[in-house]
Amino acid sequence: MTTLPHDDLGTSWRNARPRAAGVHLDSAACSRQSGAVLDAVARHARHEAEIGGYAAEAAAEELLQQGRSVLAGLVGRAAADVAFTESASASLRTLVGRWRLPPGSRVGVLPGEYWHNLAALTDAGLTPVVLPADELGRADPAGVARVLRADPPALVHVTLVASHRGVVQPGRELAELCRAAGIPLVLDVAQALGHVDCDLGADVAYGTSRKWLAGPRGVGFLVLAPAESAQLTPLVGPHLFDDGGADTDHARWYESHDAHIGGRVGLVLAIGEHLAAGPDRVRARLAALGRATRERLDGRGGWSVAEPLDTPTAITTLQAPDGVDVRATAVRLREEHRVLVTAAGRERAPAELTGPVLRVSPHLDATEDHLDALAVALAG
Amino acid sequence: MTTLPHDDLGTSWRNARPRAAGVHLDSAACSRQSGAVLDAVARHARHEAEIGGYAAEAAAEELLQQGRSVLAGLVGRAAADVAFTESASASLRTLVGRWRLPPGSRVGVLPGEYWHNLAALTDAGLTPVVLPADELGRADPAGVARVLRADPPALVHVTLVASHRGVVQPGRELAELCRAAGIPLVLDVAQALGHVDCDLGADVAYGTSRKWLAGPRGVGFLVLAPAESAQLTPLVGPHLFDDGGADTDHARWYESHDAHIGGRVGLVLAIGEHLAAGPDRVRARLAALGRATRERLDGRGGWSVAEPLDTPTAITTLQAPDGVDVRATAVRLREEHRVLVTAAGRERAPAELTGPVLRVSPHLDATEDHLDALAVALAG
Repeated sequence: MTTLPHDDLGTSWRNARPRAAGVHLDSAACSRQSGAVLDAVARHARHEAEIGGYAAEAAAEELLQQGRSVLAGLVGRAAADVAFTESASASLRTLVGRWRLPPGSRVGVLPGEYWHNLAALTDAGLTPVVLPADELGRADPAGVARVLRADPPALVHVTLVASHRGVVQPGRELAELCRAAGIPLVLDVAQALGHVDCDLGADVAYGTSRKWLAGPRGVGFLVLAPAESAQLTPLVGPHLFDDGGADTDHARWYESHDAHIGGRVGLVLAIGEHLAAGPDRVRARLAALGRATRERLDGRGGWSVAEPLDTPTAITTLQAPDGVDVRATAVRLREEHRVLVTAAGRERAPAELTGPVLRVSPHLDATEDHLDALAVALAG
Repeated sequence: MTTLPHDDLGTSWRNARPRAAGVHLDSAACSRQSGAVLDAVARHARHEAEIGGYAAEAAAEELLQQGRSVLAGLVGRAAADVAFTESASASLRTLVGRWRLPPGSRVGVLPGEYWHNLAALTDAGLTPVVLPADELGRADPAGVARVLRADPPALVHVTLVASHRGVVQPGRELAELCRAAGIPLVLDVAQALGHVDCDLGADVAYGTSRKWLAGPRGVGFLVLAPAESAQLTPLVGPHLFDDGGADTDHARWYESHDAHIGGRVGLVLAIGEHLAAGPDRVRARLAALGRATRERLDGRGGWSVAEPLDTPTAITTLQAPDGVDVRATAVRLREEHRVLVTAAGRERAPAELTGPVLRVSPHLDATEDHLDALAVALAG
């Protein structure tokens, strides 16, 4: 059995948060915010009421800009490349909606691409084309290289860690292949940032606050290199301003303004907590939690784990035994055992899933006892 | 001089909020939330950390649905017609982005239409056409009737209360004219809801939480009649779901999901506080505050008020005397006198403004002393 490393990290992560009302194994849906993050968000909102919403935002701008800087650093870019948004999906809609690509431009995707992402791509007039992958949905770099050479798409869009299966895409190899081919690589890091290494050389990365970074809901980000930004046209751009929109960082044109600014402050603090914990240590413990989960659950009560045991993520997905309803199982686990997991529908990745899966996604504060409790409950 | 009615309302509104750090006359930008709203938002976020983000949302759903119902009632519609969004601008982008209108379809607008709205309309491939209005930018119903008869646009979009000038459009007359002509009327009520009557018979209404309703930032709404909804196609629609998206209210297909749910809870409470205060009493006091502001400020230090004195809103806009910089004045008022107002750039309504204006927008808790303080400071 895998032993979990960095128990000190588990303890400090747990102590920093409100007490969980049960066993929370659902961080791929939404993590538990820390007390410091909750307090910072609430304090910002109170400050808005005291001095005015926009004055409070101006007062927070230095912190927000530090946040843009460290967030950018996690994906290998600079503060000027960061736009805060509402969500990963808002980021993608903005990106492909504002990108001046000819209608019908082809976008390389992997077979398990997330359904909302595919909908956003096709809605923007783009045509997803499926890149070669192995039987688990992981990109086949040699096959991708051939496609990029023989029949290059306008861009490649990869979800680094999927929502319906805990595998990691070979992001660094894909970034090198795309760079060599002169094709922009866009990474969806919604399930990846704060979980696995995302500093891989992609041109664009976007994601959300609420998952592995454990920030507030309603906050996302879009990080894009100046070269890609130059191919976008903002909805409200410099030419509409009397002063020409002077001195505005290029990515800021894609940042939303009537926004949950307190949530952005909270995300900045949450990123600070991630950095303080040590990204390498976080990744090591999360990967060990994933392995420990899979060891305990594979075959249990007839459920089978989709990922290889040593996949370096904390996401485990389980296929149900014949005749067992996945949604009903998630409800049963929550209501009878106070264990929180997600029933993920087949529609999330219709080209890859054959049915719904039960997703288990512990964060750092999970213990072996939690995983054992789930294993017992699942078999029951 | 106008006497302010309902001083009890001013007192209770003030007592319900954190103490203001100065004189806040800026509710057209962002109002001051009440302590109860701030607490509810913070409590929801803590609940997310305790039981999980989506479990907390499910637990709040009954409250949110009550909120949809009362919000809908304020614009004369039903709960099933309401989608919570991130902002007024997100609502408009969703509305016109998802509406299956032929490219180039014409949209009737008034001369002072808000620049972001115009950008969203043209970005969606629509062509704004300017409807007849008087010298203050108020729709001329007889002229509009002629246009709707002679050369009908596909829809009419009206901002009921502008952001750059405190006039109110004749929404009820426009709704009747549009209904008679079979043309959908879309009302932007961002500056209107919680301020003036918005139950006027429009087919679609959208707005934001943070202004006159005094709810949290980062929350908006889109309310649309089933007949209009039937002309929209959601980005992620029923056909993508394995269960066909059964039993989902028509407007919910346009509601965002990775969202500031705590903020929506806060908006519901803020609407409750508006209803408890009494919308008629709120409107009467806000209109009196607008009149009292204009009486004090018109001509003061050479500044001139744009609206007629008795315009029934709390928004006053001032044109600067020759050689006086509006932005510098707003900074001076804030830094030297702790009075918060907005310098609104000409770009907000380029077809109507000739230069920036100083916007003064007291909420119920403003007093005659506050207005006097501004008058003295403005002259100084």
